[in-house]
Parts: sequence; C-alpha cells; structure tokens
Amino acid sequence: MKLPQGFCVSCTSSGIKKNKKDLGLVYCQKGAVVCGYFTQNANVSYSVTVSKKNIHNIMHALIVNSGNANCFSHRKGLGDTLKIHAALAKQLKIRKKNILIASTGIIGKKLPVGKIIKSLPALTGSLRADVGGFASAILTTDAFTKVSQRTVRVGKKKVKIVGIAKGAGMIQPNMATMLAFIFTDAKLSKGTFKRASKQALVESFNAISVDGCTSTNDSVFFMASGCVATTGRREVALFSQALKEVCVDLAKMIVKDGEGSSKFITLQMSGAKTKEEAKRAALVIANSNLFKTAMYGENPNMGRIVAALGQAGIAVSEDVAIDSSSLKKKNIVIMINLKRGKAQTTVYTADLTPRYIAINAGYN
Amino acid sequence: MKLPQGFCVSCTSSGIKKNKKDLGLVYCQKGAVVCGYFTQNANVSYSVTVSKKNIHNIMHALIVNSGNANCFSHRKGLGDTLKIHAALAKQLKIRKKNILIASTGIIGKKLPVGKIIKSLPALTGSLRADVGGFASAILTTDAFTKVSQRTVRVGKKKVKIVGIAKGAGMIQPNMATMLAFIFTDAKLSKGTFKRASKQALVESFNAISVDGCTSTNDSVFFMASGCVATTGRREVALFSQALKEVCVDLAKMIVKDGEGSSKFITLQMSGAKTKEEAKRAALVIANSNLFKTAMYGENPNMGRIVAALGQAGIAVSEDVAIDSSSLKKKNIVIMINLKRGKAQTTVYTADLTPRYIAINAGYN
Repeated sequence: MKLPQGFCVSCTSSGIKKNKKDLGLVYCQKGAVVCGYFTQNANVSYSVTVSKKNIHNIMHALIVNSGNANCFSHRKGLGDTLKIHAALAKQLKIRKKNILIASTGIIGKKLPVGKIIKSLPALTGSLRADVGGFASAILTTDAFTKVSQRTVRVGKKKVKIVGIAKGAGMIQPNMATMLAFIFTDAKLSKGTFKRASKQALVESFNAISVDGCTSTNDSVFFMASGCVATTGRREVALFSQALKEVCVDLAKMIVKDGEGSSKFITLQMSGAKTKEEAKRAALVIANSNLFKTAMYGENPNMGRIVAALGQAGIAVSEDVAIDSSSLKKKNIVIMINLKRGKAQTTVYTADLTPRYIAINAGYN
Repeated sequence: MKLPQGFCVSCTSSGIKKNKKDLGLVYCQKGAVVCGYFTQNANVSYSVTVSKKNIHNIMHALIVNSGNANCFSHRKGLGDTLKIHAALAKQLKIRKKNILIASTGIIGKKLPVGKIIKSLPALTGSLRADVGGFASAILTTDAFTKVSQRTVRVGKKKVKIVGIAKGAGMIQPNMATMLAFIFTDAKLSKGTFKRASKQALVESFNAISVDGCTSTNDSVFFMASGCVATTGRREVALFSQALKEVCVDLAKMIVKDGEGSSKFITLQMSGAKTKEEAKRAALVIANSNLFKTAMYGENPNMGRIVAALGQAGIAVSEDVAIDSSSLKKKNIVIMINLKRGKAQTTVYTADLTPRYIAINAGYN
C-alpha cells in the first residue's frame, strides 16, 4: 500500500526486541501539519512528554519504537529521549522541534538509546513511499497489522488517507496502549483539520475499550502533507467522513485484536439524555468484567448490564429495552434503549477470556 | 457459635435453589438498634429499597434469601417484596416497619414469593441462638462460610460481637455483591453505634475489591440488642476496635473467596496527600485487570502500578517506592510510597484468574 503524497517510512531492527523489527521512521520533507491526541494518564512516557511539546510545530520526522514504553525507567529517561531527537535531527538535517516520537511496550525498562541511535542510518537510508514493514515494526502483543485507507475523489482531484495502528490490551478510552498514524496528502486549514480529526477520534479510538486500563503511551497522530488542496465545503465533508471511516476501521481492528478476545461486541446505546451519558453508559458496560465474561460464556445475563448501568449512576426502570443478536456468533450486537432521552452512541469492545489472562500474566 | 444475647436465627430451603438452604431469618424479640449501609449502585434490589425505608426503625426481624437478587425482574417486584413483609409480620406478630430484608443472587429473575411465604412457618418455628446453617443459607458462589467473633471484657461485663457475611464476586467498594450481618448485645447510643460502625465499614468492606463491579444488592447491617450496657469511654473504644476487627476478618474472607482467586493481595499505600487519595490510588490498582493478571502470573510488572496510578490522575516521579513480598506465595503484600504526603491506607484484593472467567461465564 502506498502512502499519500509527501510521506515516506522505513523500519529496522535496533535490538530492543530479539530479531524483530522494533523501530520505524516517518519522514515528510515538505513538512506536515499535525494534530496529535495523547493518553489522559497522569503518568506518561518520556516520548509523550516530548511529542506534546513539539505537536504544534510542523512535522518533518516521527520516530517510533516498540518493545519498550520509554516510561518510568530512570531519572534520565527524558534526557535520553532528547538524545535520540538530537541524533535524528543531525542525521536528517532538520530541527529537533520538528521531530515527534512515540513508544509502546513494557513500562519501567531503560530504552537502549545507543542501539537506537546506531540504527538511525539504516532507517534514514531505507525510506520508501510504501507502508511496507512499518505497520509491523510498531506492534507489541498484536496478532496482526492494522492498516486502512480511503481515497476521496472530487472532480479530477484525489485525496488519499492511509491509517496505520497498533493496539491489543489496555484499550480504554480515552485511548490506551495504542498508537495510530493517519497520513493524508490533503491541504486544509489547521482549524478544519483539527475539527475533522477530533470528530474522527471521538467516534473511533475514544469509543473502544478492551480491558479498562489506560496506558501511559497512547498517541494518535494525524498528519497532512498538504499536496492536494481540499478547501471546498463538499470536499471537506467527504474528507472528514473518509477520515472517520479510516479511524473506525482501525479502532475495530484494535478491538478485534484485543488480547485473547473471542468476541467482537458492538454496544448500541440509545435513549440517553445526552451523548456523554450514552457513552458513559456504554463504556461502563464495556468495562464490566462480569459483562465481558458473560459474553465469553455466551450467557444472556442481562442483569449484569443493569448492574453496570447503576454503577455509572444511571438508574433505569424495568421498561429499559435490552436486546442482542445471537451470543453464539463471533460478532455480537447489544442494543440498549435507556428510554431517558434521544441521544445515542456506539461503542466497541471485546470479551474477557482465559487467553487474556495467559497473555498478560506472562508479559514482561 | 452462639449469637450475642437477644438474637436468634434460622434457615430453610424454600426452593429458590435446588435442594439447598436459601432462606434465613434473624429475630430479635426485644428489638435491636440498627445501622445499615447499602450499595451505591443507582439500580438496586427491591429488597434494598424496602430495607432503606425501614432502617431507621427498631428491628425485630430480618429475612434474607440467596439465589435471587430480587432486582429488575418485573414491574411488581416491589409489591411482591412487600407481600413477604406482610406475611412475616403476621407470622411473628410484629409490625412491617420493623422488618428488614436482604437478597443476593442473579438479577432479573422473579422471586418465587409463594414459595418464600410457604416457608415462613418453618423459619419462625426453628429459631435458635446458634449461628448454625444461617451462614451457609446466605451464600451464592461462595466457597466457604464467613463468620467471625470477638468478646470484649470490661470488669465483669462481657460484650459479644458476631459477624456473618457472604461475598465472592463483584466486590467493589463501596461494597458489592456482599451481605454482612453484625450482631452485638452491646447497649450504646445510636450516635456512638453509628460512628463505630461507619469506621469499621470504611476500613473493611469499603477497602476491598475483587472485580471492580458494584452490585445492586450489597447491604451491611449492624444490629445491637442492647442487653449489655456499654457506655464508658474505655468500653466504647474497646468495642469499636473489636467491631472493626470482626469486619476486617469478614472482609478479608470475602477477598480470599474472591471468585477463582489464587492470591490474596494486601496493598499498603502510604505517602499520599490525603486518606482519600491513598484509597483512590490503592483501589485503581486493585481494580486494574493488568495488575491482577500480573499477580496471577507472579510477574513483577510494576509498570502496571504506575499506569494504574496515572489512570487515577496521580502523577508520580521515578522516586516513588514500590516494594513487594514474594509473588510466589499465596499472600502478597505490595507496599507503595507515593512520596506526596503522609496519609496512608490498606486495601485488600485478589488476582484475576482463568477460574474467575470460568465461574462467571457460566453463572445464570
């Protein structure tokens, strides 16, 4: 799959993981406008700290590693991260402030800065416009790569959107151990890009939950190289819709790859007083271990939904309507009408299985 | 084990469960002063609704059933509950307002009111001062009965406290699928009893978590028959301490019997700014599936503690001290010093195991 105009990527094995790709680079010579969204965890990776600082600048490069969260490892963690920045800036002859960084993996282990810096020439020397191995270099416990694309055509113009993500466990909105990189060659105002990306985020990565845990590292980067003007109202609407579709595709893949999950559950919440209430109601159910194990057991224990709603402070009467598609199938749809108002939302989640425990009991 | 003076109990099989004790009765002819604490879930059992209404009255009888939560079953659920009250009042020749009720079991199924009313003569006809089968009649998925007692001696006086509880899954503070009945023959002012019972509750049943789910039914009843005057300052202090010990004993048993758990984990949180912060910090860790699976796997993945603290909005530096006893043992102590202040607290929790899933996948 080709990236949108203006972007190229590469990947390599730096030695963080044994014999596996663990380092990726995004490069945009022209400079890309970026909208970034980060974990709401109060304890964040040094990579998140640095990227938050640079997110308002034009982006020329983004380096990402897997296998190490670059978080809470030692007092010089932040300094080490800046060393990588300095070396990459020198290598690419760009300024440090135009570099972003993302990490995913285990918390509390020192990032092997020397190994990463030694791998920079291999990265910068192999940049290609093809998605290639980049999508697998960012994975941790993921079972498959996550890529989605859309092309928006207006007259003779073609605007392309490509999204690449990693997910697996800890997927609790607002975001969790997930990274997503959304590339587009669209040229739009920063304000328009912000609105479109925020909307896409809310209905995708912020509408999923795997285990209710919020990671220290989650980052979503929307990058626009600005090669194709996208200014008309209709163009912007089509672009925004396509951007959302790419994000929803990736978000669903993240849930489907939820650690050890055997069911993909769509929670359609309606009849809420507000959109926020609908989401709060859906997420407390999505995060209930009792609900999740009932889904694993194909067990129509709808009382657990009522208990979860009450835990979120939402009192319901016996009139509340709870329906579901067959629990025997891999894809389950649960429809809940709270009968309190007119707001609705959709949230995606996975079941809780013995495999989740096996995966996470051993991860270190 | 004998109950404190003034109380007697009985139990029977009403047919809610197949061939198992499922109904219990507490009777206090003299009338007991009661302090009651209920689930904070917004959707509660009809039993909780009725008991909340009567909790400020003197208690003569308390009826409890297992196997059915008496919650969210049908529009006449509340009326059915009142029918049981009326029948029991007639049988015992007491007033309805002096009767409390508690239920535990599955949500959404109609309580077999007829069967229960038919069983009342068997209950009232077999009242004894011995704990007997009452402790097992209140169980659901519990693996063992939970009873604790203390005797406070001041001069020639003996004040007795006996506690009986049921627990297992869903144990999320503040309280969850748990019922506890604490009996004492102490005579104290309502104000003193309230203070002592609240303090005991906070440090016991409100300091435990099994799966982070909050039930619709949790109720703790502290009942004092007033047979033994307990007025002196030293007596009250000794009584309060003993009351807390009984509750902590029961709370720990509830965690030890956490569905499918293989580890009993004591989280000692210190160095917090406030007691509330210490508890919030400890509970977010206790409820983290990633932390719980790490404990099951005897895996020292302390990064998950940092992530959980951040999820609770508690930013910590690399100076934070996280220590633990051997993870190989059944009892694990995790000591965390946040180094933000001087407040501390202790919380008890269990690991998350494949057995939890097996138990809950099939429960209906």
